[in-house]
Amino acid sequence: MSQQYNKVSTAMLDELKNILGADFVYTDEPTLDRYKTDDEPDPKFFHVPEVVVAPASSEEIAGVVKLCNKYLVPLVVRGGGSGLNCGAIANHGGIVLLMERMNKILEMNVEGMYCIAEAGARTIDIQKMANKNGMLYAGDPCSAESCQIGGNLATNAGGNKAVRYGVTRHQVYGFEMVTPTGEIVELGGRLKKCSTGYCMEQLVIGSEGTLGIITKVTLKLQPLPPYKIDLLAIFTDPLKAISVVPKISKAGINPTSIEYMDNPNVRTTSEFLEFTGAPHLEDGIYVIMSIEAFSEDELDLKLEQANDICEACGAVEVLEADERIWNMRRVCWESVRLVSLVATTDDLVVPVDKIGEAMEYIVKLVARYPFPLRINAHIGDGNLHIVLCKMDLSDKEWEEKLTAFTEEVYTYAYANGGRLSGEHGIGHRKAHYMERFTPPAELELMRKIKKAWDPNLILAPGNVFNA
Amino acid sequence: MSQQYNKVSTAMLDELKNILGADFVYTDEPTLDRYKTDDEPDPKFFHVPEVVVAPASSEEIAGVVKLCNKYLVPLVVRGGGSGLNCGAIANHGGIVLLMERMNKILEMNVEGMYCIAEAGARTIDIQKMANKNGMLYAGDPCSAESCQIGGNLATNAGGNKAVRYGVTRHQVYGFEMVTPTGEIVELGGRLKKCSTGYCMEQLVIGSEGTLGIITKVTLKLQPLPPYKIDLLAIFTDPLKAISVVPKISKAGINPTSIEYMDNPNVRTTSEFLEFTGAPHLEDGIYVIMSIEAFSEDELDLKLEQANDICEACGAVEVLEADERIWNMRRVCWESVRLVSLVATTDDLVVPVDKIGEAMEYIVKLVARYPFPLRINAHIGDGNLHIVLCKMDLSDKEWEEKLTAFTEEVYTYAYANGGRLSGEHGIGHRKAHYMERFTPPAELELMRKIKKAWDPNLILAPGNVFNA
Repeated sequence: MSQQYNKVSTAMLDELKNILGADFVYTDEPTLDRYKTDDEPDPKFFHVPEVVVAPASSEEIAGVVKLCNKYLVPLVVRGGGSGLNCGAIANHGGIVLLMERMNKILEMNVEGMYCIAEAGARTIDIQKMANKNGMLYAGDPCSAESCQIGGNLATNAGGNKAVRYGVTRHQVYGFEMVTPTGEIVELGGRLKKCSTGYCMEQLVIGSEGTLGIITKVTLKLQPLPPYKIDLLAIFTDPLKAISVVPKISKAGINPTSIEYMDNPNVRTTSEFLEFTGAPHLEDGIYVIMSIEAFSEDELDLKLEQANDICEACGAVEVLEADERIWNMRRVCWESVRLVSLVATTDDLVVPVDKIGEAMEYIVKLVARYPFPLRINAHIGDGNLHIVLCKMDLSDKEWEEKLTAFTEEVYTYAYANGGRLSGEHGIGHRKAHYMERFTPPAELELMRKIKKAWDPNLILAPGNVFNA
Repeated sequence: MSQQYNKVSTAMLDELKNILGADFVYTDEPTLDRYKTDDEPDPKFFHVPEVVVAPASSEEIAGVVKLCNKYLVPLVVRGGGSGLNCGAIANHGGIVLLMERMNKILEMNVEGMYCIAEAGARTIDIQKMANKNGMLYAGDPCSAESCQIGGNLATNAGGNKAVRYGVTRHQVYGFEMVTPTGEIVELGGRLKKCSTGYCMEQLVIGSEGTLGIITKVTLKLQPLPPYKIDLLAIFTDPLKAISVVPKISKAGINPTSIEYMDNPNVRTTSEFLEFTGAPHLEDGIYVIMSIEAFSEDELDLKLEQANDICEACGAVEVLEADERIWNMRRVCWESVRLVSLVATTDDLVVPVDKIGEAMEYIVKLVARYPFPLRINAHIGDGNLHIVLCKMDLSDKEWEEKLTAFTEEVYTYAYANGGRLSGEHGIGHRKAHYMERFTPPAELELMRKIKKAWDPNLILAPGNVFNA
């Protein structure tokens, strides 16, 4: 189905200004230009929107969406703008809707262990306010400083605490949203269990703005474990490093995270941070593990168990990790520019017990390609960030080889129960891969939902898949 | 939308026999009569189906569903037949499809911590096989002995381990299903995290057979905690009893279950079991708690914490509970017949921190009605089983007063963030309440999905809501 959209007319602009006030309907060039992209640096993905709007309420958003349906103008929502797959770009023209004015944390309820926030609230502000109240908000994407909670729901963001607490969809009780036809509904509820009708809240979470505009969220809070330790287990064999994962899981240690850095990452991040104390710099592969507990005894016990497991798996050394090691993990992507000004990162996910095989395959595969590889991974979740470096390849060769490599990797992943994205989402960038690799009958079910809810294909057209 | 269905014709019957073999297409009266109901004892809900079929594969089911579309004949799936809301009854006539021949456990993978089973496998068989392998399947509905795993997914069954492990939807990686138009698709995947397209598996879980026929499931397994203790905390004040819940949650004790029995339940179950050792029989309100741990130290510590919390909340005594106490909890519903031959049980769910208020409201409300009340509850989940006894009321008065009471309770629940069902589902019995209490815009979103996926309204019409 291909949808013909209209340009934003003067009549529509007047109506937009009536709803939002003229101050929050932007048509000046600097503003439009500013919102031509999100975190995407490559100009070939840029699209300058026709109008940018900044609503202050769900009612205003509902009004805007109704206008978009009336005038057949597409709309894309922008949260913190930290998306990596062009999901907040007006790739079909029309309107970019900013959530930044709807940024209040409305309730932090310690007794009931929940928090209510407007969708434009920054994730880090929610985390901090929860901590201040002795609680934990367990959603923790790496972009927490800049991203918004609504965007976290829209992409089902992952992050650093997913092994223990799950991803964003597991932190959500429910939310208010504006439907693609401009109705305001509440989905989900503050319930531990519910068997009352369709679970539409989980359908919308991760749908990347194509099924509704999330306006207000009710989040679960967790008790904040008072004791915490970070372990660094150093290996020289990647498969030995990965072999800790199932053993840790079965032992009931329930770590908060299990992270992996290959040796190229260890070396480059160390250089980037000008940190001279990285152990086993020359050949070390790092597995970083966070363990939390509610008592010192529990912590000691889990630490001992984890230590034993790592040693039994062949760690050359097991140390307590501190913030300097976590800093290395954090700058994996940023530090790549020491090696290559242009690079790509991918976000493959496979079953946790297949991550070793997947890494072996990728290492073998890349040997046939002219670019070096580095891997960092949330190994506890089966989520691999494959980083490829352009080095001095020509643009043409880089593009061609990259496309070929990507095809091979995705083909392998799907044949082994994997998927395109573990936490970044599909956005506009990967929509063609989504259409290519998703079985047609499954894709058709998604299309049917999209068309049933959004008959004019107003919301984020071209994201996830083409309806 | 009201759908006109056809009766099963001879031509359709011939085609059914071609697909399934004549031995598995039943039209004899004893068989049809046997499947006129599920666990529902009230004849006013009975419907004798026109045909009963017992397929052996997903392909056969797909064939049956295609025929139903071709001939416009409705179809309802029957799992273990333990449903409490008439969800497996052919209320619009047509076909009842039995899953009993698709009952194999296909893979129990300890290393990967997952299990694959056909949808007709009994839940208890999965639990037992997991245990035998040192693992835990954490879904644990009270009907585990008779129910099937596919039915657990269809109703998002709750049960006895939900406080720690969540309900059935949290135990599922993915499944194969036959769509309402007869396609075979796989939804979800064996992935810890995924941001690749719409999360349709969670939409289908809990949709009670209206969006697809689940044929094969991939379940998560948990490490089996080797240490376990059950506590019985006895109170005389219901609000004090309930006040333990948030304190236990915040302490990070993470119990497997927190169950509640009011004093009428304590007395009747004790009488029913002819168990003379029930402590504080005359006035005790029981809170039963299961605590699991991976080491003795961890268990001791949690036990001490839980004990302290219960005492601080005003428990008159805290004891170790054994199987006799759990037996009392299990026979709450069955033992009611000592008091009244006719009784009803409801399945309200409210936010966990509102369960005290909800109980107070219900106790106060029922004082205006001529029937006695007893409450047992999964208080750790906010899920209340309200049991009302007909005693010697006339049928007419019972029906009238019950309807009035139910309306009042549901109105209260919805005004306080509650819902109709925490774990039993809506089925056919509560569909009119679902339509009445669900906000129209939300119901409309459900209808749009149902109609988009099942344009001929073949699957389980009249269940959950009328499309």
